[in-house]
Amino acid sequence: MLFGAIEAGGTKFVCGIGRENGQIYDRVSFPTTTPQETMKQVVSFFSQKNIEAIGIGSFGPIDLNKDSTTYGYITSTPKPYWNNFDFIGEIKKHFSVPISFDTDVNGAALGESKWGAAKGLDSCIYITVGTGIGVGAMTEGQLLHGLLHPEMGHILIRRHPEDRFEGCCPYHRDCLEGMASGPSLEKRWGKAGLELFNNEKVWEIESYYLAQAIANYILILSPKKVILGGGVMKQEQLFPLIRKEVVKLLNGYIQANEILDDIDSYIVPPGLGDNAGLAGAIALAQNSLIEMRHL
Amino acid sequence: MLFGAIEAGGTKFVCGIGRENGQIYDRVSFPTTTPQETMKQVVSFFSQKNIEAIGIGSFGPIDLNKDSTTYGYITSTPKPYWNNFDFIGEIKKHFSVPISFDTDVNGAALGESKWGAAKGLDSCIYITVGTGIGVGAMTEGQLLHGLLHPEMGHILIRRHPEDRFEGCCPYHRDCLEGMASGPSLEKRWGKAGLELFNNEKVWEIESYYLAQAIANYILILSPKKVILGGGVMKQEQLFPLIRKEVVKLLNGYIQANEILDDIDSYIVPPGLGDNAGLAGAIALAQNSLIEMRHL
Repeated sequence: MLFGAIEAGGTKFVCGIGRENGQIYDRVSFPTTTPQETMKQVVSFFSQKNIEAIGIGSFGPIDLNKDSTTYGYITSTPKPYWNNFDFIGEIKKHFSVPISFDTDVNGAALGESKWGAAKGLDSCIYITVGTGIGVGAMTEGQLLHGLLHPEMGHILIRRHPEDRFEGCCPYHRDCLEGMASGPSLEKRWGKAGLELFNNEKVWEIESYYLAQAIANYILILSPKKVILGGGVMKQEQLFPLIRKEVVKLLNGYIQANEILDDIDSYIVPPGLGDNAGLAGAIALAQNSLIEMRHL
Repeated sequence: MLFGAIEAGGTKFVCGIGRENGQIYDRVSFPTTTPQETMKQVVSFFSQKNIEAIGIGSFGPIDLNKDSTTYGYITSTPKPYWNNFDFIGEIKKHFSVPISFDTDVNGAALGESKWGAAKGLDSCIYITVGTGIGVGAMTEGQLLHGLLHPEMGHILIRRHPEDRFEGCCPYHRDCLEGMASGPSLEKRWGKAGLELFNNEKVWEIESYYLAQAIANYILILSPKKVILGGGVMKQEQLFPLIRKEVVKLLNGYIQANEILDDIDSYIVPPGLGDNAGLAGAIALAQNSLIEMRHL
């Protein structure tokens, strides 16, 4: 059985074809321009591919409330042209197969729980640290939604005592995303992350913020695995710094061996590497078939 | 059908008998002393009452992992005598009915979603602000657990710029519980909460911390209702202060009418008032019967 997967990011779209086991054997990537142009490429890629369901992991915010008149839309995004775009509606015009739609990070969390670092677990979070900071969550075996969907990248955090950067989130200034996203690194230090590799202070401050957020996610969601991906996390020196700081912040309060004795296996990079998002969209596509059978 | 409900708090136990509709018609309360003494009173209350299931909402931390050898225990509590107490085991010695065990706050969240302020919703959080700060959560129609269970009272928060109090959490010093619990009020101001009624600064600082935590809970869990109970919340002047600060902190980012237009109906006191915990334990008891039928 073949599934279509769309990883819809604000910078680029990745489309792929995959099988039940999550294996991807055909993929294409193109920049996110206007919906018209971008969707034309999506439709052209999937045509004649005999896919039986489509999974979409999308940048947001998106409307996931099935009772809403704008279900399946990208809603209040600041990204030009994509505001109020009917994503599911556009796909449905061209393909009459079941469609599953969720946030890109929820898709990645699902993919990681099926085939990656959280395999076999009913609970995990997937954090991406890049242009923005997004987090997807599986709790009690379900992807987490609610009033809307989580927007955990924007939680309020404490400032590092030596950090004078004002923050770059247009909504909250110095929230997590405002202080620890890729653009915040560039604005604070005047250079891209890659050029900052040897500057210890950069990564100390970055890990201070990410660890704080992760400690709060652990206290609030109690995930069984914390997966950290995205462009900024290519700086692998961040992992030991973050783990150490999380343990320090929790200070023995959460009495779980995973944290007290085996933090190296608890806070980890994606098991699926850069495929987490696309594999997640395949997992979403599979879910859409399961849901359809239950109706 | 009659259900037994136990609201097991660190200060007092409340036991009750209730029906399917959550109505409680018999209740008793006694101080939490030693497990031997306290459980004797519990057993004596429920004897000859013809209950068909028992629900327990307990202070924690507790072990909720059914595969664990200490499932149903109160685990690493600092409360004298209760460390490693086999709560379910003790009840089972005397009653051969299905038992459901969860945190006191998860129980209250379940009760509120069945009969209270979150009736009909599949998502809510129940926050109690008293001797400690605890939060229970329902997400996607399920009570939230994970590695252990959430311990949201201990999240890290930003200090109020005028607050010089060092915090009173033995684990994290100035986490939410350390800065906003009942004891923190007494230690900071040298008087009990009730005597501070007319001091505006007290409630400004208190609402600053609670609003910050609630903003983060909203960003992380996206609950459909935020319910605030516990002794400190008897200070009803806190509600408008907290609502205003939450809206300010989120700054329009979460585009939901519940927050933008109707915050008064979104952040609310418990619909069940002081019965939230006990009614929640009845709801847990009902769940134990449902679970048994599904086995």
